[in-house]
Amino acid sequence: RIDAGRLWNSLMSMAEIGATPKGGVRRLTLTPEDQAGRERLAGWCRDLGLTLRVDAIGNMFARREGRDPSRPPVLMGSHLDSQPSGGKFDGALGVLAGLEVMRSLNELNIATEAPIELVNWTDEEGSRFGHSLMGSGVWSGVFTPDKAYALRDVDGITVGEALDSIGFRGEHPATPFEADAYFELHIEQGPILEREARQIGVVTGAQAQVWYDAVITGQDSHAGTTPPSTRRDALLAAARVIELVDATMRKRGEDGRGTVGFLQVHPNSRNVVPGEVRFSVEFRHPTVEQVEAIAGSFPGEAGKAAAANGCQLPLTELYRIPAQPFDASCVALVRAAAARLGYASRDIISGAGHDAVYVARHVPTAMIFTPCKDGLSHNEEESILPEEAAAGCQVLFEAVLARANR
Amino acid sequence: RIDAGRLWNSLMSMAEIGATPKGGVRRLTLTPEDQAGRERLAGWCRDLGLTLRVDAIGNMFARREGRDPSRPPVLMGSHLDSQPSGGKFDGALGVLAGLEVMRSLNELNIATEAPIELVNWTDEEGSRFGHSLMGSGVWSGVFTPDKAYALRDVDGITVGEALDSIGFRGEHPATPFEADAYFELHIEQGPILEREARQIGVVTGAQAQVWYDAVITGQDSHAGTTPPSTRRDALLAAARVIELVDATMRKRGEDGRGTVGFLQVHPNSRNVVPGEVRFSVEFRHPTVEQVEAIAGSFPGEAGKAAAANGCQLPLTELYRIPAQPFDASCVALVRAAAARLGYASRDIISGAGHDAVYVARHVPTAMIFTPCKDGLSHNEEESILPEEAAAGCQVLFEAVLARANR
Ligand SMILES: NC(=O)NCCC(=O)O
Ligand SMILES: NC(=O)NCCC(=O)O
Repeated sequence: RIDAGRLWNSLMSMAEIGATPKGGVRRLTLTPEDQAGRERLAGWCRDLGLTLRVDAIGNMFARREGRDPSRPPVLMGSHLDSQPSGGKFDGALGVLAGLEVMRSLNELNIATEAPIELVNWTDEEGSRFGHSLMGSGVWSGVFTPDKAYALRDVDGITVGEALDSIGFRGEHPATPFEADAYFELHIEQGPILEREARQIGVVTGAQAQVWYDAVITGQDSHAGTTPPSTRRDALLAAARVIELVDATMRKRGEDGRGTVGFLQVHPNSRNVVPGEVRFSVEFRHPTVEQVEAIAGSFPGEAGKAAAANGCQLPLTELYRIPAQPFDASCVALVRAAAARLGYASRDIISGAGHDAVYVARHVPTAMIFTPCKDGLSHNEEESILPEEAAAGCQVLFEAVLARANR
Repeated sequence: RIDAGRLWNSLMSMAEIGATPKGGVRRLTLTPEDQAGRERLAGWCRDLGLTLRVDAIGNMFARREGRDPSRPPVLMGSHLDSQPSGGKFDGALGVLAGLEVMRSLNELNIATEAPIELVNWTDEEGSRFGHSLMGSGVWSGVFTPDKAYALRDVDGITVGEALDSIGFRGEHPATPFEADAYFELHIEQGPILEREARQIGVVTGAQAQVWYDAVITGQDSHAGTTPPSTRRDALLAAARVIELVDATMRKRGEDGRGTVGFLQVHPNSRNVVPGEVRFSVEFRHPTVEQVEAIAGSFPGEAGKAAAANGCQLPLTELYRIPAQPFDASCVALVRAAAARLGYASRDIISGAGHDAVYVARHVPTAMIFTPCKDGLSHNEEESILPEEAAAGCQVLFEAVLARANR
């Protein structure tokens, strides 16, 4: 059995790094806070005698040797980076539960057949550089390290520069090595498990997504002198596109997702009709057909909405992820572990993207969800109970152990 | 006659300070750039033998003594601060034309009966601290120096701190002293004079305005997991209010003005449904009744639009300025000077706010407008011709001289 108190202590210890006054965490990827989180994790791994590798995109792999070192390892993990005003558990739970699995294996003197590796993927959140699941995306070959290195944050800092500045551009190539399986524990970040009072979600796959960058160009002009007929107000045009995103989502009912989360106005002065607005758009749906349909129609409709307000809207598609089903045998291990342990569980589709989605392209993969209060995530008030964390960790332990010894 | 070339040279010299790559100016109030502009002006005034006073809110007064020093001075001027991406002439023209009047008076050895004072008002633009016409507002007693000192920019810096940091919190009280008249030359910042090919606008008054600060509060949540029915998207609510501002403006036809120029999203992350949006709202109209009607209905309607999206919208009214007619005798001096000089002119209402609006509460006031290209202002491409600047300056010269010698 894993040690529930020790798991909770490591979660609280990690949450000190980047702690916000409202009880959340700001540990943006590749910042000094992320560096501090990585170093704390590395220290804990060293204490356990694990061997640490860092790859060229900063992904961290901590290896516990198996009886047969030639067998491909079983991977488990998640991410330590957070949203700008994120919670203590989104990502950290999966990494620190993996650490707790390692600690329990050591303490119980268990030797596994296959090696086990704990992974901390770089930049899962995507909020700083515009591409979520970045580290796992590079590792999986979805895009090249060079493309990732060149991504910039709002201050113009590139991923490459940020990696170097925290000393985490590792020497190992960021390419998929052979692995036997990947298990990721994560909070659900939605309301379903809590509403149905289930401790475990057996994640069968993740929904499809498409992300865009939008720039609306109108014309800066004086708020007091520019008559309605000659205004080319980029913010008004953006408002119309924001409403279009919402309508496009609602057309798909409760399964639809459509969000403008990031928006910047230029010159952003009270008495200037805005000449430029930059913003993000993303859509999601459990069925890839719906996302494809949106990707087919939305750019044209958005362009029309902008043009109707005298503005132009070049839309750049950042990326598209199809719906990703997980590996049936790995999912079955999770389902069986939950049943054996007596936890109420259900199959569930992930609303969020996870590193598991990209890893699943190369490695048999499954995920375990645990509930979070009010389904709230990407919010400083994100909250879970120690026994919920422990239940997820115990399922992870059993699934990983079963796979490594098969 | 004033020296058109010398006037143009001082405009170009001032435009070097805070020059932007696109040919505009970024000389935000009470920044090091503003300080540099003020110091250049002070040096030019010293060279002319003028006596400089700075008041407690940073307004600068450069005095040329009259034959009768006991007579109240005739004031002329405008402002040297600019928008974040503003033009070279908005404000600077009025100050440097005033300087050119002083230079011409010296050169022509003209002694005036009344003293003449050139004024550079602090923070006319309002884009940094949220209150346009700030320096003239304090001087006119519209609000107290302490209220002004406490205003903060987006970084939390107060007006008081900013004044001290550039060394322009002067020793003279910022209160209205007795003055005989105030004349302000400014570019029109709108399309009327250019369209009608008139060199001079005889400004008979300025329109009414009301400015607000708005904060919409919803709830941050995960873009991938939060279903349409439970979203409390502050940016979607803001989009609806932006459309309401536009509709409220258009209901008043071509004379209506309604603008959201400033907007900030929190946490501003691509995959987070925004939980908070802060923005500005301002409305203007030539008749005060229309602005009063808007101020009566808009806050309630905006609150309803926010509530319909599960959000709250506390709206703070920052200030309201009634329509301000200018002094008939001063306006007549401007009209007469333009006619005598043979310039095509017309009466015009100012769409923009100007320091003259507040000064007019205590001092007989008039303004002179000159055309600008495509009516464009609050834009780096704002542009005027040297002969347009010279015509405005010549009218200013004659009006000021006539008043000072009456
Ligand atoms: N798990 C999680 O919050 N991932 C962030 C990527 C996304 O789904 O937007
Ligand atoms: N003249 C001018 O642009 N003033 C700024 C104040 C305003 O009218 O918004």
